[in-house]
Amino acid sequence: MQLTIFEIAEQIGGEVVGDGSGKIESVSAIASAGSSNITFVSDKKHAKSIAGSGAGAVIVSEPIKGLDKPQVLVKDVGAGLIEVLKIFAPKLKAAKAGIDSTAVVAKDAKISKEASIGACVVIESGVEVGKGSVISSGCKIGQNSKVGDNCRLDSNVVVQHNCVIGNNVIIQSNTVIGSIGFGYSFIDGAHRLIPHNGGVVIEDFVEIGSCCCIDRAKFGNTIIGAGTKMDNIIQVGHNAVVGKCCLLVAGVLLAGSAKLGNGVVMAGHAGVAEGVTVGDGVIIAAKSAVTTDVKAGKKMFGMPARSHIEMLRAQSSMRRLPEMVKQLKQLSLKVEKLESSKDDKE
Amino acid sequence: MQLTIFEIAEQIGGEVVGDGSGKIESVSAIASAGSSNITFVSDKKHAKSIAGSGAGAVIVSEPIKGLDKPQVLVKDVGAGLIEVLKIFAPKLKAAKAGIDSTAVVAKDAKISKEASIGACVVIESGVEVGKGSVISSGCKIGQNSKVGDNCRLDSNVVVQHNCVIGNNVIIQSNTVIGSIGFGYSFIDGAHRLIPHNGGVVIEDFVEIGSCCCIDRAKFGNTIIGAGTKMDNIIQVGHNAVVGKCCLLVAGVLLAGSAKLGNGVVMAGHAGVAEGVTVGDGVIIAAKSAVTTDVKAGKKMFGMPARSHIEMLRAQSSMRRLPEMVKQLKQLSLKVEKLESSKDDKE
Amino acid sequence: MQLTIFEIAEQIGGEVVGDGSGKIESVSAIASAGSSNITFVSDKKHAKSIAGSGAGAVIVSEPIKGLDKPQVLVKDVGAGLIEVLKIFAPKLKAAKAGIDSTAVVAKDAKISKEASIGACVVIESGVEVGKGSVISSGCKIGQNSKVGDNCRLDSNVVVQHNCVIGNNVIIQSNTVIGSIGFGYSFIDGAHRLIPHNGGVVIEDFVEIGSCCCIDRAKFGNTIIGAGTKMDNIIQVGHNAVVGKCCLLVAGVLLAGSAKLGNGVVMAGHAGVAEGVTVGDGVIIAAKSAVTTDVKAGKKMFGMPARSHIEMLRAQSSMRRLPEMVKQLKQLSLKVEKLESSKDDKE
Repeated sequence: MQLTIFEIAEQIGGEVVGDGSGKIESVSAIASAGSSNITFVSDKKHAKSIAGSGAGAVIVSEPIKGLDKPQVLVKDVGAGLIEVLKIFAPKLKAAKAGIDSTAVVAKDAKISKEASIGACVVIESGVEVGKGSVISSGCKIGQNSKVGDNCRLDSNVVVQHNCVIGNNVIIQSNTVIGSIGFGYSFIDGAHRLIPHNGGVVIEDFVEIGSCCCIDRAKFGNTIIGAGTKMDNIIQVGHNAVVGKCCLLVAGVLLAGSAKLGNGVVMAGHAGVAEGVTVGDGVIIAAKSAVTTDVKAGKKMFGMPARSHIEMLRAQSSMRRLPEMVKQLKQLSLKVEKLESSKDDKE
Repeated sequence: MQLTIFEIAEQIGGEVVGDGSGKIESVSAIASAGSSNITFVSDKKHAKSIAGSGAGAVIVSEPIKGLDKPQVLVKDVGAGLIEVLKIFAPKLKAAKAGIDSTAVVAKDAKISKEASIGACVVIESGVEVGKGSVISSGCKIGQNSKVGDNCRLDSNVVVQHNCVIGNNVIIQSNTVIGSIGFGYSFIDGAHRLIPHNGGVVIEDFVEIGSCCCIDRAKFGNTIIGAGTKMDNIIQVGHNAVVGKCCLLVAGVLLAGSAKLGNGVVMAGHAGVAEGVTVGDGVIIAAKSAVTTDVKAGKKMFGMPARSHIEMLRAQSSMRRLPEMVKQLKQLSLKVEKLESSKDDKE
Repeated sequence: MQLTIFEIAEQIGGEVVGDGSGKIESVSAIASAGSSNITFVSDKKHAKSIAGSGAGAVIVSEPIKGLDKPQVLVKDVGAGLIEVLKIFAPKLKAAKAGIDSTAVVAKDAKISKEASIGACVVIESGVEVGKGSVISSGCKIGQNSKVGDNCRLDSNVVVQHNCVIGNNVIIQSNTVIGSIGFGYSFIDGAHRLIPHNGGVVIEDFVEIGSCCCIDRAKFGNTIIGAGTKMDNIIQVGHNAVVGKCCLLVAGVLLAGSAKLGNGVVMAGHAGVAEGVTVGDGVIIAAKSAVTTDVKAGKKMFGMPARSHIEMLRAQSSMRRLPEMVKQLKQLSLKVEKLESSKDDKE
């Protein structure tokens, strides 16, 4: 596939600065781009390196002066990049609507004729799947669970019984929704599993990566709020509630009954302890664990997590520690000397 | 489903304090319970909030005085909760005994007639599955592995060859038992895999969450002791030995040949290093890594983990550090001044 | 299976010191070995315990004087152990070449006649699988992806479209290759997914454990360099580049566009932040997170990671902190006293 820079600008609603006649075949990063690639500059830091790039064109939100390259001027570089990546997306055969002959589907399941059910998929009694949804090979959807419209469940996803998945939800491969949570009572010398009568609710526009686990609730529901995006290998415990539009990076761990507000961001391997409430817009640094309630807007760091600034200050002092140990020793000697000289005079 | 409070009390072996005629439809948490819900008070902390709850009844182990609500008095609230949750468990169709027509089962496999083998399950040569066990869709059981009685393997579990799973074991979806461990020798400039001739032994009443990995041993067996419960996304390295009745929370990581005693508790993302032995009843805090042997009964925290108390003390001092840096500076100035005034006098 | 010590020595290219007529049935660790087991001593630490072992024979690289046991002398104990484990490997039926009747394979896929495609495998349009490769049950290989010769994909592995897997690659169960990465642009109040047009390239002799996720690139490829070995539950973000012969232990997390040189070692739960470059031979300690570029050969520890030595020193001072707080207080009192006595005199 080949398009002129001018054609690209037209398709993404941009304006060409310079010569728009060059031909572009794909999108590339600044460092690796060649003359048939279009690249992009999303911040001033990258603006410096663009002059040395071999790219045939560059997407910008402000024209870069003196740049010897055609520029495609757009309002928002992020949005422009998404559009140009769509243009050059690899051509794949779309999933066919209908039920694959190797799928095992319960008679009373309600599958939209516009849904696609892949090979070796298992769909149990009482399940509903909406129009435009694609359930890829090897998935299992348990009794009475509902998948809305325009969802995509990649191969080998497991959704257990009585879960509700909204519209426009993406769940990537090998993720498990509705597993039984880690709730035990210690009775007569043994840990006895507490039955998990509740379910999981995944609201609209949620996107979940691969190898994640979202446990069902003991009663009520574990909830993932609309628009929240989850990376890979994330654990959400029973009865946890995640707000809307949160970003959870890989390795995140939410213990049972943890509650996140809206717009919370958790970096890699971050965690929230059992029953803890985290306010709107809180940012939790990588490898940090929040163990007590946190108010909206805070930035937390460490284990147990404290205010980010406080922890950075403490860490920076920590690196001075060996020096402080020495200073303290010298100072003690000086004071001793002063004391003994005082004693001499008295 | 509807039961009177009196009927519930009867079924869970409790005693009604107050009016037992109200009708209950399900179990709920104190905060969200309405008049058709029964809730529970498991500790004094929650006893305070029960008065404000809309619950129609409450399970208690001691009558709460002055409470304007019917109470169901039981010996152990945890046990009572389990019983009442069982009563109101969602009604699901049970797995049918027998082998699904889409399963691929080796001719010499010994499958109990009272076992259930789901759709697209693959069972290899020499495998045995005991009575009452349910192997759900998409599972694979490798050559010569044995699954005991009354086990439940959820969809897409993989058990590789020569593994032994006891009775009453639960393994949730997408968990892998008997993968080859991470053991390499560096020979002639390359890492060469050490063959893993051993297997995995999972003892009775073990419960394992989703997306866990339990590697097979190089020789002998990786062992999970009876009654141990494991959460999701847990890694158990080759030749590791986990004692009886341990609790391993999500994200735990046991390196090769790590050894846990009985009743060990590891919190989220905790780890034990290669070959390290952890005594009975040790508690390892979240995100902590034990790197040297630990005696029974200790509580460990940090990376590398130390005694919990020692670490908390050090952490609390750490937050005083920036203040200490200032104090040390001021003190130095004072001592300098004292020294110079002494010099003046001499 | 039974072999004399002499026969074993012959097969692994070693030399018997002592009586080679004893019969050996398997390999075992020093502590658990009996008279029908052969064990091994790989370092001086273990040499001490061998005298007390019940082992029938021992593999060594230098004869142990005064040891009352037959020894098999080899150049490299690690290599010798690999050979002897191969001899005693459990006998398993090999996967049959050909396509299982329950597999769903696209008509235009090019599958070598010497490859083995297991039960319920799904192979999409344009896929190629080379000779000697074994694709186990429940795997899915997406459109246009290529698997080289002599690879082994264990049950339920998912490889999405447009990925390239070299020769002699092992991928263990439930691992996902080519999932869509965690890349979003915040536009008009919502996180919008950036299309991932790129793929994943896994070079020759790479070995990947269970439940790993390797995300596809936005453009170009996410790359795992030749000879790299990965443990279980590892996340590799989009556009990350891992060098050759790296060792990544369980729980490792590489963020998007992270770059590892050759021979990098990352311990359990270690991480590298977005876009950070790590030099050749760097070692990153368990639970540490590298957040800025690191030069070749460094050993890093902590979060954020610093030089290993610097961090150990700071940690050791940290444990002196409560003592330092006391000292500082006492010193302040002494100085105050000195100051007031000076004032008295003036």
